[in-house]
Amino acid sequence: MSAESVDVVCNTSIAATSGPLSADELQKMNAYWRALNYLSVGQIYLLDNPLLREPLKREHIKPRLLGHWGTSPGLNMLCVHLNRVIKRDDLNMIYVIGPGHGGPSLVAHAYLEGTYSEVHPNISQDAEGMQKLFKQFSFPGGIPSHVAPETPGSIHEGGELGYALSHAYGAAFDNPNLIVACVVGDGEAETGPLATGWHGNKFLNPARDGCVLPILHLNGYKIANPCFLARIPKDELQKLFEGMGYKPYFVEGDEPQSVHQQLADVMDRVLTDINDIWTESRQGGVVERPSWPMIVFRTPKGWTCPAEIDGKKCEDYWRSHQVPMGDMDNQDHIRILEQWMKDYRPEELFDTNGGLIPELAELAPQGQRRMSDNPHANGGQLLRDLKLPDFREYAVEVTSPGSTIAESARVMGAYLRDVMKRNLESNNFRLFSPDENNSNRWQDVLEVTDRCYMADIYPEDDHLSPDGRVMEVLSEHQCQGWLEGYLLTGRHGFFSCYEAFIHIIDSMFNQHAKWLKVCNHIPWRRPIASLNYFLSSHVWRQDHNGLSHQDPGFIDHVVNKKAEVIRVYLPPDANCLLSVTEHCLRSRNYVNVVIAGKQPAQQWLTMDQAIKHCYAGVSIWPWASNDEGTEPDVVMACCGDVPTLETLAAVDLMRQHLPEVKVRVINVVNLMKLQPQSEHPHGLSDHDFDALFTTDKPIIFAFHGYPWLIHRLTYRRTNHKNLHVRGYKEEGTTTTPFDMVVMNDLDRFHLCEDVIDRLPQLGARAAYLKQAIHEKLIDHKQYIAKYGDDMPEIANWTWGKQGLPGMVGTSTEGDNV
Amino acid sequence: MSAESVDVVCNTSIAATSGPLSADELQKMNAYWRALNYLSVGQIYLLDNPLLREPLKREHIKPRLLGHWGTSPGLNMLCVHLNRVIKRDDLNMIYVIGPGHGGPSLVAHAYLEGTYSEVHPNISQDAEGMQKLFKQFSFPGGIPSHVAPETPGSIHEGGELGYALSHAYGAAFDNPNLIVACVVGDGEAETGPLATGWHGNKFLNPARDGCVLPILHLNGYKIANPCFLARIPKDELQKLFEGMGYKPYFVEGDEPQSVHQQLADVMDRVLTDINDIWTESRQGGVVERPSWPMIVFRTPKGWTCPAEIDGKKCEDYWRSHQVPMGDMDNQDHIRILEQWMKDYRPEELFDTNGGLIPELAELAPQGQRRMSDNPHANGGQLLRDLKLPDFREYAVEVTSPGSTIAESARVMGAYLRDVMKRNLESNNFRLFSPDENNSNRWQDVLEVTDRCYMADIYPEDDHLSPDGRVMEVLSEHQCQGWLEGYLLTGRHGFFSCYEAFIHIIDSMFNQHAKWLKVCNHIPWRRPIASLNYFLSSHVWRQDHNGLSHQDPGFIDHVVNKKAEVIRVYLPPDANCLLSVTEHCLRSRNYVNVVIAGKQPAQQWLTMDQAIKHCYAGVSIWPWASNDEGTEPDVVMACCGDVPTLETLAAVDLMRQHLPEVKVRVINVVNLMKLQPQSEHPHGLSDHDFDALFTTDKPIIFAFHGYPWLIHRLTYRRTNHKNLHVRGYKEEGTTTTPFDMVVMNDLDRFHLCEDVIDRLPQLGARAAYLKQAIHEKLIDHKQYIAKYGDDMPEIANWTWGKQGLPGMVGTSTEGDNV
Ligand SMILES: Cc1ncc(C[n+]2csc(CCOP(=O)(O)OP(=O)(O)O)c2C)c(N)n1
Ligand SMILES: Cc1ncc(C[n+]2csc(CCOP(=O)(O)OP(=O)(O)O)c2C)c(N)n1
Ligand SMILES: [Mg+2]
Ligand SMILES: [Mg+2]
Repeated sequence: MSAESVDVVCNTSIAATSGPLSADELQKMNAYWRALNYLSVGQIYLLDNPLLREPLKREHIKPRLLGHWGTSPGLNMLCVHLNRVIKRDDLNMIYVIGPGHGGPSLVAHAYLEGTYSEVHPNISQDAEGMQKLFKQFSFPGGIPSHVAPETPGSIHEGGELGYALSHAYGAAFDNPNLIVACVVGDGEAETGPLATGWHGNKFLNPARDGCVLPILHLNGYKIANPCFLARIPKDELQKLFEGMGYKPYFVEGDEPQSVHQQLADVMDRVLTDINDIWTESRQGGVVERPSWPMIVFRTPKGWTCPAEIDGKKCEDYWRSHQVPMGDMDNQDHIRILEQWMKDYRPEELFDTNGGLIPELAELAPQGQRRMSDNPHANGGQLLRDLKLPDFREYAVEVTSPGSTIAESARVMGAYLRDVMKRNLESNNFRLFSPDENNSNRWQDVLEVTDRCYMADIYPEDDHLSPDGRVMEVLSEHQCQGWLEGYLLTGRHGFFSCYEAFIHIIDSMFNQHAKWLKVCNHIPWRRPIASLNYFLSSHVWRQDHNGLSHQDPGFIDHVVNKKAEVIRVYLPPDANCLLSVTEHCLRSRNYVNVVIAGKQPAQQWLTMDQAIKHCYAGVSIWPWASNDEGTEPDVVMACCGDVPTLETLAAVDLMRQHLPEVKVRVINVVNLMKLQPQSEHPHGLSDHDFDALFTTDKPIIFAFHGYPWLIHRLTYRRTNHKNLHVRGYKEEGTTTTPFDMVVMNDLDRFHLCEDVIDRLPQLGARAAYLKQAIHEKLIDHKQYIAKYGDDMPEIANWTWGKQGLPGMVGTSTEGDNV
Repeated sequence: MSAESVDVVCNTSIAATSGPLSADELQKMNAYWRALNYLSVGQIYLLDNPLLREPLKREHIKPRLLGHWGTSPGLNMLCVHLNRVIKRDDLNMIYVIGPGHGGPSLVAHAYLEGTYSEVHPNISQDAEGMQKLFKQFSFPGGIPSHVAPETPGSIHEGGELGYALSHAYGAAFDNPNLIVACVVGDGEAETGPLATGWHGNKFLNPARDGCVLPILHLNGYKIANPCFLARIPKDELQKLFEGMGYKPYFVEGDEPQSVHQQLADVMDRVLTDINDIWTESRQGGVVERPSWPMIVFRTPKGWTCPAEIDGKKCEDYWRSHQVPMGDMDNQDHIRILEQWMKDYRPEELFDTNGGLIPELAELAPQGQRRMSDNPHANGGQLLRDLKLPDFREYAVEVTSPGSTIAESARVMGAYLRDVMKRNLESNNFRLFSPDENNSNRWQDVLEVTDRCYMADIYPEDDHLSPDGRVMEVLSEHQCQGWLEGYLLTGRHGFFSCYEAFIHIIDSMFNQHAKWLKVCNHIPWRRPIASLNYFLSSHVWRQDHNGLSHQDPGFIDHVVNKKAEVIRVYLPPDANCLLSVTEHCLRSRNYVNVVIAGKQPAQQWLTMDQAIKHCYAGVSIWPWASNDEGTEPDVVMACCGDVPTLETLAAVDLMRQHLPEVKVRVINVVNLMKLQPQSEHPHGLSDHDFDALFTTDKPIIFAFHGYPWLIHRLTYRRTNHKNLHVRGYKEEGTTTTPFDMVVMNDLDRFHLCEDVIDRLPQLGARAAYLKQAIHEKLIDHKQYIAKYGDDMPEIANWTWGKQGLPGMVGTSTEGDNV
């Protein structure tokens, strides 16, 4: 800031020019802002001497300067003004801070509101507490630099930019009185997820939901570049927001006085708008998509830091982004820092003990109206269990294995329909999907609710309404972000997605898993509902699409995260899927990944068997095995619905051709059972693992995903040396279902051959079978090249031959209805 | 379509209402459209009887119906009109089809232009060829359903939606005469990457680059839902595009006649605009960001298919998305299909041989002007080698290991600066980064070029200009998409990114790797430059940020893809990084991942040593080992710069405290060397692996990433049972650099302890050292909690003690400049 502007910032006799703020209000609010700025700088720089009551020395300054200043003064100003209206109108408001690197700001905010000291009594509201507050920031044993879970009031770390608006909308759904103030960095606004995040307004029902108040923090710069939204004409910017369905209000300037007045004025208008919209939509009548207000807040990056340092532009420039000034061995720099902080006049802001003076403290709202203490930002506090129907009632009847055909995903959909129904009144359950709800076979849900839609609805539309609880938008990012926001504020949900495309949100999953991991160790963070994924239209049955739609690697990605928050299930049939689904809906603080197909398929287990199997997570299927009472010659393990089918078909071949071979069939539904107990809480003990998989027999493992994942999970197990895994090895195209498994050597014939190759005792006899197998595979290739469909003996194969030929079929032309 | 509309579609005496097309032109163009539509339906449904010269029977129809009709008629109409202007104005144009599931359309297009038969002589332009064309679509042994690499003219498969505009802009950069017609699905437009993709216009220089012509295909629907852009008022839509800096032209209707005239008219205007912009910007003077034209093409989804099937709305509805009508055992359905196809009047379109009649064939452009044959869409044809300076000249001088401190990333930047310089005239090299070019230490590049910027530039801006070749935008999606588009059209580039956030483009990487894999097996697809990633600001040195910025899992993700297209390098120092960089820039058709730090660090190898080391990919470091001439007691392996440092420091500790232990130090720079030869072309033979890692000695492996990845790569190796890996296990926060390794047990002390624990021969003696180690770790924790910085003996440790204390340092406050 220039010499003059210093005076303006800090002038206690600042005059109310024009605007809604009285001179007194303006002066106090500006003082509160100075206090926040002071605390923000202090956190980045100071180790001691928090109130600058002694001359600043090198030893008062941190040896390593970490954190981000640039965004903080703007965030601080916004906090002051949000507090004003919260307090005045008794608002229920939380914040979502896109530029989460502004940790110093929100920590300062919670500190001045008193919440910080409530959760961390050591960080008291006095000089000693302030010193600790400063020291702990980005300091070993202290707190991270971002608006991390450690920050009371935060549901959004903002480390990875782009998800602010999606989180905000997720939080606002079904919270009719909540305003979610969402600050969007102008750099963040360049990201893809944020760019589509704005369109959340096409899904927010003003009668039922709360409101998102987006505030574009147009401070002009990101790390080292200007932001393009700050470098287009104002009318273009205005059209952009109008085109996205908002009513933009502009606040612009670098004179605090004027900005305070403008911002107060705009806040007042914005709240009037929100109230009008709410009132109108709630007085009955047609609910229409309103033009929600949003704020463009154009103020300098790094506002109030030195205008130049060492002759280089700093305030209102990208150089203020992180630590504006380093090298604190330089005495001049110490003086600059001291002056900078003193310009905020701490002596006027804090009393002799170091507490905020009462006339400023009273600017903050009280109790749970404080954004730093709003229970919506600690969703576990508000979480209520779902009312769950008995999943057993949705069981597919299985008189004998393979005798029934069902679409697992569809059965799950029927169960979810009734979960939805039972919780309609609680308004705390939603489903999310990128235009794949029906494709993934959850259409039964639409019997009890609609798809949510606030854009124009036509008479011919299919289950669309503003009140729908199925959230469909063609953006995996939105689905994920909405669901996260919904869960973090204490509700429940399920995300259904094509398996391959869930990779789109790999990094969002990372951030959520990290958030959960950290929360597990923060006592005041109450557990929230798990994030549940249902991945269907999986790698083996992307019939219409081919290679680009084949990728089972999300599991690999997921298991890199902390075992304590990760669960992966591959139910082999509908009854298992039901059992797993219920389990996921009951669980807390996990990420559950459930993978199962949507095509008609043979069913293996009765509900009773399924429950036991899922409880165990991995078990021998006695009816498919013939080693009972003796030792097996070979273990045939399978995980995933298609590998299970192929394994059973292989076992059937073995029974016909090598009946003397003792086969043990093991199915894995809970993938984490394979890991050692020391690595994952679900892991089997070595003892149990050895009992199941033997210590010395060959294991042929047919896996849904990339085969090496199984090795990675089991390399410490006794019998790992005899483990042979088949899975997806990135071979695929638009072809028949059986050809997909053949291309990846996962088919029944290859599995048989794998067994033969590992049982030398079969000797010369096996040569005939191997030859027959090879010839069968050639028949297969020739047949499909001619007819485009699998050989009937393959497509219609059923376990135990009870099935009627043609019951399954491979035709999928109705896949998108 | 209704009975009336059928007449309009197919009426050969269609009258020119008003518009630029004469009656004759209109009639011919409509006929060409009918031909494309006919061929699109034929591909989805027919196995035989391609020209419907016999009555249609069940056996003429495919048993499994696969593919997507809904988008095809719209794409077909666009092809006809793009061809008109290409031919008339001799334009250089390629297409990028966002809804890549419209494969039938673009295959039909290439077929009618003759290109298809040129590359696939079996698919001839006659009845026999047409039958094969129909049969092969989505058929085993045939072609995939999308605009896959198998489709001549495609650079964009469009399987995973969202990247059309980013690819299109990437293709247009540095191709001053190229128009990239980019069709965006209205569903696709809901995705995040696409939503920010529009802003490519802030980076396209009309004087230097070509042009992207976005065409929003507003057909109203996606798989099972309406698209919100089709359900907002027109003026809102208009503002949206104006707000994004475009000049939108609307074409709307469902009467082909009127739509033809409107579209022809709009195409003419659009081309005038493009020409005006090009001309103006190239006549000298200031280059300003123009308002580029774009087209909103609002026509019915599934246009010209039956209006209803089985009483259900199909045309102009989501039900037409995929296969509008299934169950072809139903005779009525056969009749409906036959009528539908006959309504296109194939007998008027194709001659007796089944070839397109000459008066229609002549509507297509000739030779390489055909979009299906444009060399830009087979970029390898245009690819020229980069002129590379000798990387040896950028070597850091290393008189002895550890004696020099350098920032590896910065050294790489100096080399890239000169790569940039030497190729400035060729206009074929660009760097891409999400606002991290300087943060990742490539700032030297800005000495020879600027950052590209077409939004407003201020005097104080730092190296911004319309002519810059460093592409910085805060969107990993844009960076990736632009780079892909740039490479696919025959140019070179490098993407620098924070390691953690590269996960944002996991799924884009998947698609590109899949594309390359397929291209490797298509002879007419010429090799393109590799996609090179430089990941810096990596997991171990995210000093300012903490847990959310720590994720080394991109490697795990990458190695799931086909070995033939994947390479991963972790150079331990600057000279190795130089050698690897040069190698990547020379390579073709790979994805190269290079991971190295940006902080000042000790340098280990001379350039000569580095070249040999990188060539080998993994080698013993004799100067750090003491087992020469004997057998080692332990192998200490390391991969990644930070693990290498800790390993060497551990070796130093061992030398002091357990000098009799024979240690072999192995460094891995090429990660794929660890895999068996059978799994990866770079893999070491078992023989070589055993020679290096021994068959029975303990191996302590310090790894940059998740430790299990090393197990996954090596589980088949003889000595795997003795392999003990340390790496990142998801523990981290904002703390000191050394504390990060301590939190993950990767530090020198833990490594020493790992050795001791695995050498029982050390017996009781080792107890003292273990205790000393534990105490040292407690000292460390206490020290950092007090001072916030690493103990000097840690931070200043250097190999061989030649280094000056304090040379490295852990202070990083200047990280963003
Ligand atoms: C997805 C992603 N990419 C890159 C980064 C690295 N990064 C951290 S802050 C920042 C700039 C943010 O600018 P802006 O959103 O304008 O926030 P400001 O600090 O200006 O308020 C960047 C690129 C990130 N955090 N997330
Ligand atoms: C990222 C992504 N998510 C989901 C899908 C599944 N999917 C395939 S087509 C489609 C609808 C596309 O609609 P639109 O872009 O409007 O294309 P069109 O109407 O022209 O077919 C969807 C959701 C996908 N291909 N990519
Ligand atoms: Mg900014
Ligand atoms: Mg569409």
